Amino acid sequence: MLKGILEYAHDLLAETVKSGEAVIDATCGNGNDTLFLSKLTGNEGKVIAFDIQEQAIQNTQRLLDHHNRKNVILIQDSHDNMLQYVSPADKQWLGGAIFNLGYLPKGDKTVITTPASTLAALGHILQILKPGRMVVLVVYYGHEGGMKEKEALLQYAIQLDQKQYQVLQYRYINQKNHAPFIIAIQKK
Amino acid sequence: MLKGILEYAHDLLAETVKSGEAVIDATCGNGNDTLFLSKLTGNEGKVIAFDIQEQAIQNTQRLLDHHNRKNVILIQDSHDNMLQYVSPADKQWLGGAIFNLGYLPKGDKTVITTPASTLAALGHILQILKPGRMVVLVVYYGHEGGMKEKEALLQYAIQLDQKQYQVLQYRYINQKNHAPFIIAIQKK
Repeated sequence: MLKGILEYAHDLLAETVKSGEAVIDATCGNGNDTLFLSKLTGNEGKVIAFDIQEQAIQNTQRLLDHHNRKNVILIQDSHDNMLQYVSPADKQWLGGAIFNLGYLPKGDKTVITTPASTLAALGHILQILKPGRMVVLVVYYGHEGGMKEKEALLQYAIQLDQKQYQVLQYRYINQKNHAPFIIAIQKK
Repeated sequence: MLKGILEYAHDLLAETVKSGEAVIDATCGNGNDTLFLSKLTGNEGKVIAFDIQEQAIQNTQRLLDHHNRKNVILIQDSHDNMLQYVSPADKQWLGGAIFNLGYLPKGDKTVITTPASTLAALGHILQILKPGRMVVLVVYYGHEGGMKEKEALLQYAIQLDQKQYQVLQYRYINQKNHAPFIIAIQKK
């Protein structure tokens, strides 16, 4: 069956991330991906989750508490400051990562991810990603500024060397209202 | 893991087609999809396979004989004459279908699928397809005329009513040389 965008994003990570690994949620939002990754990596693993908004951090903390998940490091900062928090940058240690591009659902629609910070964070994540592992980006672009970010991301993704990365686009093409799509980047 | 185009095409059909059903291979080519569908539908099911070229029919027959598969009806004609061979057109009875758009691998590269016949065949298949089932199109477009067919197909697929169909595009976007992609159409 054709899988929906969120189901497919989670499936890709579930098939690659291993229990005990460290992963990154670059945009924790309301915490749904963070919770999913927390369970996937297990008590021996960890999730490093970023969001620039206090509300997102609070919502995610609440969700994690509700499910009694304790393997998440929540960081209220832009993901392009990632280098300050995750190290070492000279090793491939990351089991996987997810981005949800756009604004916080039910939150302030003027606070959005931007091309410069998204691409900076993505570039760093690709460096520390283990071979065979994936970054999954769920791209919402119906909001103001979204189209610009979408174009910048596609431009970046298209030029990634096919000897080093496989870059898949998974999208429903007959939907109205700028339906979100997936870009999945797997390191070879 | 990210699945290759041919593996993903087969997986989609394997997840939806049931043993005992009838399916269509609209372009049997060298018979790889026909053989796959023959095994999938089993001895109680059947595959109706079209190709306009004698060489393709012969290659497919040889492959089926080699695997002792007897549930395939091979028809040497354009798939847009499908209506002459498959009936009834007023019922939804088809378990699934596949197209490989382009030319016969290792065959005559001037004999190619064309937009008019492809869309005619696709339109008919969508009518007789059971709800929940899929048509999977593997789109090769690097050859002369391929770009035109690709554009015509995308234009057709994009306008399919989202209340009636889900239309997925699955493509690797960082590959050179016009890598093939998938359009999967699932009837709701």
